[in-house]
Amino acid sequence: MANNSNNASYGDDSPIAAFATTPGNSALTLIRCTGKDSIELASSVFAATRTKNNSLQEDTSPLMTAPGNTVIHGWIVSNTKEKTNDKIDDVLISVFRAPKSYTGQDSLDICCHGGMTAGKAVMVALKSAGFRDALPGEFTFRAFMNGKLDLTKAESVMELVSAKTETSRRHAVSRLSGSLHNEIDGIKKLLVEVLAAAEIYLDYSEDEISADAEEAEGKLPKKDTALEALTRLKKLSASWQLERVYQEGLTVVIAGCPNSGKSSLFNALLKEDRSIVTEIPGTTRDWIEAWVTIEGIPIRLVDTAGLRETGDSVEKIGVERSRKLLEESDIVLYLIDGSRGLTTEDKAFIANIGKHILIWNKCDIAPLPESLRVSGQIPISVSAKTGEGLVELYTAIISATGIKDLQLHNDPSSATLGTIRQKNLVDAACTSLEEALTLSDNDEPLDIIAPLLKDAVNSLGEITGEVSTADLLEKMFSNFCVGK
Amino acid sequence: MANNSNNASYGDDSPIAAFATTPGNSALTLIRCTGKDSIELASSVFAATRTKNNSLQEDTSPLMTAPGNTVIHGWIVSNTKEKTNDKIDDVLISVFRAPKSYTGQDSLDICCHGGMTAGKAVMVALKSAGFRDALPGEFTFRAFMNGKLDLTKAESVMELVSAKTETSRRHAVSRLSGSLHNEIDGIKKLLVEVLAAAEIYLDYSEDEISADAEEAEGKLPKKDTALEALTRLKKLSASWQLERVYQEGLTVVIAGCPNSGKSSLFNALLKEDRSIVTEIPGTTRDWIEAWVTIEGIPIRLVDTAGLRETGDSVEKIGVERSRKLLEESDIVLYLIDGSRGLTTEDKAFIANIGKHILIWNKCDIAPLPESLRVSGQIPISVSAKTGEGLVELYTAIISATGIKDLQLHNDPSSATLGTIRQKNLVDAACTSLEEALTLSDNDEPLDIIAPLLKDAVNSLGEITGEVSTADLLEKMFSNFCVGK
Repeated sequence: MANNSNNASYGDDSPIAAFATTPGNSALTLIRCTGKDSIELASSVFAATRTKNNSLQEDTSPLMTAPGNTVIHGWIVSNTKEKTNDKIDDVLISVFRAPKSYTGQDSLDICCHGGMTAGKAVMVALKSAGFRDALPGEFTFRAFMNGKLDLTKAESVMELVSAKTETSRRHAVSRLSGSLHNEIDGIKKLLVEVLAAAEIYLDYSEDEISADAEEAEGKLPKKDTALEALTRLKKLSASWQLERVYQEGLTVVIAGCPNSGKSSLFNALLKEDRSIVTEIPGTTRDWIEAWVTIEGIPIRLVDTAGLRETGDSVEKIGVERSRKLLEESDIVLYLIDGSRGLTTEDKAFIANIGKHILIWNKCDIAPLPESLRVSGQIPISVSAKTGEGLVELYTAIISATGIKDLQLHNDPSSATLGTIRQKNLVDAACTSLEEALTLSDNDEPLDIIAPLLKDAVNSLGEITGEVSTADLLEKMFSNFCVGK
Repeated sequence: MANNSNNASYGDDSPIAAFATTPGNSALTLIRCTGKDSIELASSVFAATRTKNNSLQEDTSPLMTAPGNTVIHGWIVSNTKEKTNDKIDDVLISVFRAPKSYTGQDSLDICCHGGMTAGKAVMVALKSAGFRDALPGEFTFRAFMNGKLDLTKAESVMELVSAKTETSRRHAVSRLSGSLHNEIDGIKKLLVEVLAAAEIYLDYSEDEISADAEEAEGKLPKKDTALEALTRLKKLSASWQLERVYQEGLTVVIAGCPNSGKSSLFNALLKEDRSIVTEIPGTTRDWIEAWVTIEGIPIRLVDTAGLRETGDSVEKIGVERSRKLLEESDIVLYLIDGSRGLTTEDKAFIANIGKHILIWNKCDIAPLPESLRVSGQIPISVSAKTGEGLVELYTAIISATGIKDLQLHNDPSSATLGTIRQKNLVDAACTSLEEALTLSDNDEPLDIIAPLLKDAVNSLGEITGEVSTADLLEKMFSNFCVGK
């Protein structure tokens, strides 16, 4: 980003600005500003336009007097001395006053025209007025620091933005509205209850050593409560396995000999599902990939058709890439050219790949021989051209992912984890709690058990951000996109 | 778009919604809504969240009571019967009340989360509430119909969004703030003045034929005023030649034998100018292009390096594409591989291309022979690797465009035309006016001259939209992007 953000740090409340939408061929572009004096600074490059008796009047400080949560129409103007009031763009500005804003600080949302130039020119004006480029996630960081949201909600904002399917969106929104925060809070309360009971025993036993207390020393009070907490922690931890699939998706690579119909199958699968389809050209333009959704699961579909399969020196790069793609795939769809039948080349290829589904393509002109088995599998009979067999192929893909089992063990209405950070902390809490329970079963003294319960509570506190370090926060928010 | 917009037409005031920003990996997405009952409809899928005593209260109709130009925070919720109040996204909604809005109708700007899913889910909810997809340019169409802006300003909105450089942005903003509208209005006033004077003569001559009037019949009154109008019209018309270059840009194609350094030069030119650089993969991925700016002129730089130059059957397609690219180019940068020298292949190629600049590449390892001339030209000595000679290359490109001459004859502060539609109408007004002046010089009667003046006035009225047909408007606005 710009040079003036080189020395920027997450800790300060300086005025920042960032594009909140992708500049492109769109009607509008949104720029967000927040921080100390942000309204004052913005008003130095703003002139409102008001219609009075059909003539335009320009008023230079309407932002300063605007109440919070109001929208002002006017022009962003240049504030350089040489070209005073050079009009830059016709904008709508929403004014938010602390603490009633996303960040909790004075803020402005500037809605300017779309395209490649208007937003950039407005940004230049804002910087000349004293704003600096926002760091990634800096808006949400400030919101967190000002108590506007806890860490699980802050993370869900990022999850929501990168959600690839309706299911992942729904889960992220659920966390944004507090489902995970509430569940963590609930579990923490249980543990605090157990801990409080244990500490009463500890205090008691220090003061007056009685037979009762001594007996109790080696037993965790409220063990049932601790066990309930453990069950709920395990359930949360287990939710991550499925959630990760929803978030990151699975990679399905289409492979096969030249002319086996790889591109046709790729296009047929895209055509069936138009719900996402963002074609992302590989950086090397050697293969094509696109995201499709199958039963709510985002599938990164990769067509290796662009990869050259011959063997001379330059082409070796293509082969190398092909191998890498196959390695990082979750499932390979291997196409047999029905019109040629199973070749020795096919057999050699199949022997060397991991989890795969065999497809007998071109079944409209060459039906699958009834007896054909390839290493025990019956290939799925498909015609990428006519669409025959695609439904069976979907079923086979879903079955190969093993997702159905995961879904079976997941209650869709309950809280789910959204990040690996949360998962690691839940697991840490589990480990501490299990250790505490084991020690209790072995009649170890409570003064050894209590610190483990505290560790578990602290881990949960870290999830919501009650317990946190500056380093951790910076690392977390720097993974956000700018403008969030 | 969606099926419910199949029967939509520009004429109605039905509630419409559209993405105003490009969905993508951004913090936010903006959806615009406008039309009859739009606030009522939106409130059927909206629940505001207000913090009161630290507990969340949900109020179902805060949009209904919101004053214009205020921002409300809350959730878009599903309004389907099965899943009442299923939360869809946490949003900010700006409410605008007629006539104080962009379109002049009740409107809402819904600021939801970015990414591929949140905006889509919100759009689904809005449609379930009764909104339909907006047609391209429908928002601006309504703004025009409700007298919010004239056609020159409406067109400038589109020009602004598609502006590729600062210069084109500045010109579009100038038209948006009324420069062209005012100039057209000024010229029209001059013509109306002449026309009024002529009609007084006509009326007079009909009633009482006097020697004076008869003498005047063949002479255009206020000829000086008519001539001033003509001068200003011609100046406007001339502005289009340069404006078009700023808007559409020029295509510069890099060609040359394999290994002459085409990609290196492409990258070197991109590196020099990072102001736009949006790499647009050709649909066939066979070539790479990017927009760069040289002295405010948008240059579409095309690297043909990906095109295969060999001659077998499949590769012929590449050659065909290469030929087409060269044909549509304004300037070809032809690279001679300095390390190999000028080859017969080079000579054959150069003989067959249009306007071109010859470049002697790799001058860092192979200096340009002093005596070398190729069809009268001295090649420019360049090293794409070290950057040597790039400044001279820029100068040569600018000189080859002929843009300097156009700039010389253009006053940067005066009004400019923004579309070919405007240019054609200005030319039509010119033609009518010139004909009127010629007839006047030939002493033809005023009743033949006056209708020509009226034609000129009408043409100018069409530019601003005072005179217009439904067909024309629909055609014009359908070129806009959706959401504008």
